[in-house]
Amino acid sequence: MADKRVKMIASKSQDLNAWYTDVCTKAGLMDYASAKGFIIYRPDGYAIWEEVMNYLNRRFKEVGVRNVYLPTLIPMSLLKKEMENFEGFAPECAVVTKGGDKTLAEPMVVRPTSECLFSDYYKDIVHSINDLPIKDNQWCSVVRWEKTTRPFLRGAEFLWQEGHTLHADKNEARAFALSILRIYDELGRDVLALPFVTGSKPSSEKFAGAEETFTIEGLMPDGQALQCGTSHFLGQGFPKAFGIRYTDHNNQLAYPYYTSWGVSTRLLGALIMVHGDDNGLVLPPRVAPIQAVIIPIRADENPEVLKAAKELEANLSKAGVRVSLDDSNKTPGWKFSQYEMKGVPLRIEIGPKDLAKGEAVLTRRFDESKSVLPLSSLPAQVPVLLDEIHAGMYKKAYDYLKSHIYTCTSKEEIDTVLKEHKGFVRMMASDTPEEEAFFKKEYAATPRVLPFDETPFGDKDPVNGEKADKVLYFARAY
Amino acid sequence: MADKRVKMIASKSQDLNAWYTDVCTKAGLMDYASAKGFIIYRPDGYAIWEEVMNYLNRRFKEVGVRNVYLPTLIPMSLLKKEMENFEGFAPECAVVTKGGDKTLAEPMVVRPTSECLFSDYYKDIVHSINDLPIKDNQWCSVVRWEKTTRPFLRGAEFLWQEGHTLHADKNEARAFALSILRIYDELGRDVLALPFVTGSKPSSEKFAGAEETFTIEGLMPDGQALQCGTSHFLGQGFPKAFGIRYTDHNNQLAYPYYTSWGVSTRLLGALIMVHGDDNGLVLPPRVAPIQAVIIPIRADENPEVLKAAKELEANLSKAGVRVSLDDSNKTPGWKFSQYEMKGVPLRIEIGPKDLAKGEAVLTRRFDESKSVLPLSSLPAQVPVLLDEIHAGMYKKAYDYLKSHIYTCTSKEEIDTVLKEHKGFVRMMASDTPEEEAFFKKEYAATPRVLPFDETPFGDKDPVNGEKADKVLYFARAY
Repeated sequence: MADKRVKMIASKSQDLNAWYTDVCTKAGLMDYASAKGFIIYRPDGYAIWEEVMNYLNRRFKEVGVRNVYLPTLIPMSLLKKEMENFEGFAPECAVVTKGGDKTLAEPMVVRPTSECLFSDYYKDIVHSINDLPIKDNQWCSVVRWEKTTRPFLRGAEFLWQEGHTLHADKNEARAFALSILRIYDELGRDVLALPFVTGSKPSSEKFAGAEETFTIEGLMPDGQALQCGTSHFLGQGFPKAFGIRYTDHNNQLAYPYYTSWGVSTRLLGALIMVHGDDNGLVLPPRVAPIQAVIIPIRADENPEVLKAAKELEANLSKAGVRVSLDDSNKTPGWKFSQYEMKGVPLRIEIGPKDLAKGEAVLTRRFDESKSVLPLSSLPAQVPVLLDEIHAGMYKKAYDYLKSHIYTCTSKEEIDTVLKEHKGFVRMMASDTPEEEAFFKKEYAATPRVLPFDETPFGDKDPVNGEKADKVLYFARAY
Repeated sequence: MADKRVKMIASKSQDLNAWYTDVCTKAGLMDYASAKGFIIYRPDGYAIWEEVMNYLNRRFKEVGVRNVYLPTLIPMSLLKKEMENFEGFAPECAVVTKGGDKTLAEPMVVRPTSECLFSDYYKDIVHSINDLPIKDNQWCSVVRWEKTTRPFLRGAEFLWQEGHTLHADKNEARAFALSILRIYDELGRDVLALPFVTGSKPSSEKFAGAEETFTIEGLMPDGQALQCGTSHFLGQGFPKAFGIRYTDHNNQLAYPYYTSWGVSTRLLGALIMVHGDDNGLVLPPRVAPIQAVIIPIRADENPEVLKAAKELEANLSKAGVRVSLDDSNKTPGWKFSQYEMKGVPLRIEIGPKDLAKGEAVLTRRFDESKSVLPLSSLPAQVPVLLDEIHAGMYKKAYDYLKSHIYTCTSKEEIDTVLKEHKGFVRMMASDTPEEEAFFKKEYAATPRVLPFDETPFGDKDPVNGEKADKVLYFARAY
């Protein structure tokens, strides 16, 4: 093969957008489908999503959630019922008007989300208090008519999970929605190495029909916020609109409390943007399809190098490491670039000199730090190193997030932050529609989150001068 | 709670259809969606499918297959290209004509299968021999416009996997399609306890565009065949139609060879029909969401019974058994019926007398055989018992299949079999369109499979008297 370096990509700091699409395509995560707005999840991209699925399936199971599957298509009348009952719910949908060669009496939409479908189902299966709680989850894709494509971040179709639960007790329902948000936050911390600000959505940003929407908000390298997952406490709105009732302990008819919650492949977008660098993708070890790549050096003249590399591959694999040996005839330089682009967390080189000393050279993708270790120690050491890499990546991202939260107590400070620093503005807020309008007009920004567990640091909103008892983060957002 | 038995279901032998839908709904596997043709996969139904997914993901990975995801919607022009190139491909589709509130310039269909979408993608990513082989698989749902619903067997939407591979070498491609069929056959044998007849589809029953279609055919209790999975060797048809080409070792442009293959939730239908009985569902242990249920007897007066039951639950769970303890206040009789209906493979009763002897009573769902075993032996014995149950269920189904294959060497014999016995007619065949027309007209039956590895037992087709060198099974079919 030609000894050429992997094709260059745009600079992350100079052109984030170009860099982002370069990485998505050149790291082999996705491809554009020929239909506008749609993408193809290639094996290395889908594998990351599968690790998210594995983690969440395990966590959901622990809290009694089971998987189900409801239809892809929703009768228009069901969606309309939701739109009429919940102001602000007006998804742009793909509409099926023909089945076979016949025009349908009632059009159907490709699911944009499934609350109305679950509600229609629950009304038939919920009868008594003994049927509660119900805790369902569905892995599927959703379609929202959207012609701009930013891979994983915005597009006509994405993959997600949508959870739906019903509870007899209001507090139990709200607490459950919160417990799911904690799972999402831990998915970030423990799997994706992504830190989030967690809290409630300001009233203007809640899901239509929600009493409270809880959110995990990430911060991207351009200082823009990205909503990475939400959990809604929906109260009794859907049960009342769709007639879901049960006989309670006192033999009275009652409406249950509803929660719904979801994360999507948008998380892949966050992961790419937060961790990647000018050499390409940087994957956190726990979702990397290949965690360590072994590259033999000058193996053609030194057959014992390849032998040692194969032995190491077998030993690491036995130790539970997702390892790959690249013994192709490409140059080491080409391979280095290639696996950097693909974001493989750890590179292990073995050359004749290393082998003579019984050693290998290990290079961590995320900070390029090198170490030389005895070959025999690697099956024990590599899993430790991968955990260190995860911790290091999380810390780096966490430090970035924390250092881009700016506490502001005056309009002037807000102006300065949004012009000079970019990131979250942290302020005392009144959370009113007027305030929201001001943010949008003045800064093209939105109120993102009322964070959990923060102590008020004043009692006046610096934007409108009104009384304020809530801490609010706002920012420009994706 | 009221001490009533679980609602009765129809008799399997007297009314298979009514029995089947009774079991599907009353065992909690599915529910009907309000849109005609669509069903809801409830947790106990979806869990079976998840076990199928787990097994196949593991097996596919062993042969180098990776998961991908391509769009739900296919531009009409792509589907038309397939229809124009491959005679007989004319799926009834759900057609999207509107996006948001605008009429689309080009309608799109909800995927009925994705060969044209994969081909359109492959033409962009396949360039050189180094890009081959490609081995992709997709888990998704497909929609085919169909108003009759027989849960899992027929309907507007089902869940499936569809594999798509490209190979430079023709023999490699054909062998790969065959190796996938072997995996499907082993899924039946080792996971679902379902025996199949394996072989090639007769020419009239091949997938449009396929050079060869390999199939696993099951036999249902009414003597009708059910196609349970297919693997297609597609030759170069799709690459030629869609322009997928690569530069080979001699720097010449060449077309790769294509295979595609799939199994669907139809397998759940086969499993229900083959194993179920008049008391409801009978689940093979390896897909059962609950493998063993513990039912304490007279625990209200004997607190030590509940204590022992809980201890047993913990120990079985530690031994890797999916176990559930039902300590609700329903009567043992109600519980027995309930878990019989749900098909739980093993029931474990502990009462005060058993406990005094340090024993429990175990009842196997599929053959109702009982054994009394020391409590302390159960963590070791239950996994063994579950394997025995699996083997017993497979043998029972295998014996049924084998005893319903009738070798016929004359028209009279064929008549007799289809009138009196029901099952597969095994005969020497010429595999011609005329023969197929005759089967359809005379017996409302179709040629199902040219089985692998069977020795010809004559040289003349008893139907049309023509020269015949192939063994053929034909039957009425779902």
